[in-house]
This record gives sequence, structure tokens and C-alpha cells, in this order.
Amino acid sequence: MSGKIDARLSELGIELPTPTTPVASYVGFVQTGNLVYISGQVTVENGTIQYAGKLGAEFTVEQGYKAARICGINLLAQLKNACGGDLDRVKRVIRLGGFVACTADFTDHPKVINGASDLMAEVFGDLGQHARAAIGNPSLPLNTAVEIEGLFEIN
Amino acid sequence: MSGKIDARLSELGIELPTPTTPVASYVGFVQTGNLVYISGQVTVENGTIQYAGKLGAEFTVEQGYKAARICGINLLAQLKNACGGDLDRVKRVIRLGGFVACTADFTDHPKVINGASDLMAEVFGDLGQHARAAIGNPSLPLNTAVEIEGLFEIN
Amino acid sequence: MSGKIDARLSELGIELPTPTTPVASYVGFVQTGNLVYISGQVTVENGTIQYAGKLGAEFTVEQGYKAARICGINLLAQLKNACGGDLDRVKRVIRLGGFVACTADFTDHPKVINGASDLMAEVFGDLGQHARAAIGNPSLPLNTAVEIEGLFEIN
Repeated sequence: MSGKIDARLSELGIELPTPTTPVASYVGFVQTGNLVYISGQVTVENGTIQYAGKLGAEFTVEQGYKAARICGINLLAQLKNACGGDLDRVKRVIRLGGFVACTADFTDHPKVINGASDLMAEVFGDLGQHARAAIGNPSLPLNTAVEIEGLFEIN
Repeated sequence: MSGKIDARLSELGIELPTPTTPVASYVGFVQTGNLVYISGQVTVENGTIQYAGKLGAEFTVEQGYKAARICGINLLAQLKNACGGDLDRVKRVIRLGGFVACTADFTDHPKVINGASDLMAEVFGDLGQHARAAIGNPSLPLNTAVEIEGLFEIN
Repeated sequence: MSGKIDARLSELGIELPTPTTPVASYVGFVQTGNLVYISGQVTVENGTIQYAGKLGAEFTVEQGYKAARICGINLLAQLKNACGGDLDRVKRVIRLGGFVACTADFTDHPKVINGASDLMAEVFGDLGQHARAAIGNPSLPLNTAVEIEGLFEIN
């Protein structure tokens, strides 16, 4: 079962990490009907937060874009788990909620969250087109610069 | 197909703009089953952001209310598109997520987001009654004072 | 109809308040299909906001945890109403959206929102395991330190 989406990920040079399971009273994702709700993902890579800080202060929009891409990859890792390993079961990326830790004068939240939106387009093509809200936050968990939650439809 | 809701909009003196399509890897709305998820709408009118700034600083609650109403009108424009032009297909406004750019001492977020909630009641009557979350943000995309996303059920 | 979940609430010493109905154009909850969307709940107890202020300033993480638990109890009160009084109809806690009023250097949002997540686990056991997003906000309605919205599946 070497899938189409797995092949696409290889082509893009993306290796999905093992999704982290929260040591808490919540979980990485919940499925109800065909909908999969994925918990807010932060910029963790190999167990370490990347891009700890804020847009408008420590980080440029380009760095924020990369931070959002990491969150997107972590979303995909959870999603693969939700699909029992087969990402070809994804029917549609429905919604991303994008949170940007930033200063009060920062206004480029959309350009930051594009890092995850573009990833969905690269991986899923037309099925990756989603609704989205991008907002600013004074701070986020573990000082992550970006956090993104997702809603997906699967078969 | 001159609908009941179109007539109601005329009565209220509301002309829906052409919904803007993001030039990006996301879209204005996504439908899954009978649910329509609409992307966060800002205070754009005729291509220009109105009410750029923050509650508790540049703007009063009354101005914020008007800003939220603009976001609501932009939600309706996207929704009409999702309904193939026929707003009579709307069965229920399910949820609004309301984001208010504000100072740290501002506490009247609900009165601001009422600008969109009241609009839904005016346009859809009982079907406009929705669940809602209203929160504060240090800043929002393009410096908009208010951003609102929506979830709707349609036939 | 003295239910299993009601018994569990008694065991935990939790008495659900009468859910407040917003005096506004929105409501406490909306059901669509088997999904119940519950509006953002704040730290109101007996008509008064508890924990008015911010994490990182007035309140410790422990206090924030208790504030989140109050929001969680108010979610359950709304949910019971949505279930026509019978909480045994709850099939799954799907998602909590947790908002923490905090300073820009606060990073323990997850530990705060655990106050509501742990409550769901205590009350519903495995069915209480949910997806979650926890974020920071410069301020929240009525100066509440925590606000939480919820999505639930019911029979």
C-alpha cells in the first residue's frame, strides 16, 4: 500500500515524523463520521520547538512561513495516523486555524500561515484547497511562533 | 429565483459585494456534506480595509460593532456563492468565530461581535441564532479591527 | 432518568448550574446532525466572573487550571441542556477550543486548559478524549482569565 500521497511526499522530500501523543486528557485527533479534527500542532521537530518567539520581534515573515510549514507537517503526521497509515483516504482539507504569536503591530499573519496552506496544495493538489482563519496571539504554548489546527474529510 | 432572503437583504438596504477569492492556497469557503466552512472575513469594503486599528485604542465599541457588521456582510457574500446564488438554501447559521484586535484592557468583545450576530438575526430570523466564540487578539491580518469566520448549514 | 453521567457528576461533587442564555442574537448551543456546537463559556459562577485578569500577571497556572475547570462545568451545563437533560446521550467530546488571557511572555497555556480537559476525562472517561487547541489572548470578554468553546457528538 505505497500510496499516491506517500509518493508525493517523497517527491517533495518530506518525511513525516511519528505523531506525538499528548501526555494529557486530550488526544492528537478525533474522528466523527468522515471528519477528522486535529489538535493544534506546534513547531516541534525531533522533540524540540523550532522558532520559539514572535513574529514582529525575533522572526521575519519568511521564518514564520517555515514555522507554519513545520506545523503543517505535524498535522499531516497526525492525519496519516487518523487514516490508519493511508493518506490516499484524504478527501479534502476542510479548514486550517492558524495562530501566530506576534507583536501588536504585526499584520502579515496570512503570509505566515501560507506556509501550511501551500504545503496542503503541494501535497493534495485541488483537494488541499481549504477554508482558513489566520489570527494573532500575544503568546502560544511552549513559546512556539506558530500553531495550526486542522479539519479534514477522509474516506 | 428572486429569493426570500434576497428580498430581506434589499429591505435592509444591504447589497452583497462580490466575494473575494484569496490569491493563495486557500479558498473563501469549503462545503462538506451540508456544512459550509467560510474563511475568516475582514473589514474589506470596495477593496479597502475599513477600521484598521484596535478596539481600546483607535476605535470605540460602536465603531467595532460596525466593523463586525462589515465582516458579517462579507460572510454572507461568500455564503451566497456557496449556495450557488440562492440564500434561501441556508438552513442555519451554526457558529461564528469572532476575533477582535484590541488592547490588553479591552473587555467588550461581545458587544463588538454583536455587529455580525445581529446581522444574522436580521437576515435569517430564528435560523440566524448561532453558537459563538468572541476573543481578543493583539493584531489581525491587514490591521483589520475585526475578523469573523463562519459555519453554516445549507440544503 | 437518573443517568450514569449524572451519578458520576454527583460522585465528583459537581453540581451543574443552570446554563445562561445569552441576551443577544446568539445562543448557548446549536445542534446540527449529531454535532453540538457550544458557545465560548467564561468563568461565571453564580452570576459573577471568577478569575478576572490574566495568566502571567494576576494568576498562577494553578489558578488558571481552576478557571478552566469552571469554563468546563459551564460547557457541561449547556451540553446537558442540548441533550434534553440526559448527559448519557453524549457519544464523544470532539474538540475544545481554549483561550487564555495572558501576558506576552506566558507559555503554559496547555497546563491551564488541562483544567477543562481533565474534567472531561473525569466525567466521560474514554469518551472524554478530545482534540484541542490552546492559545493566548491579550484580553477576553468580561476580563475572564479563560474562555472555552466545545464541540460534542450526541445520540
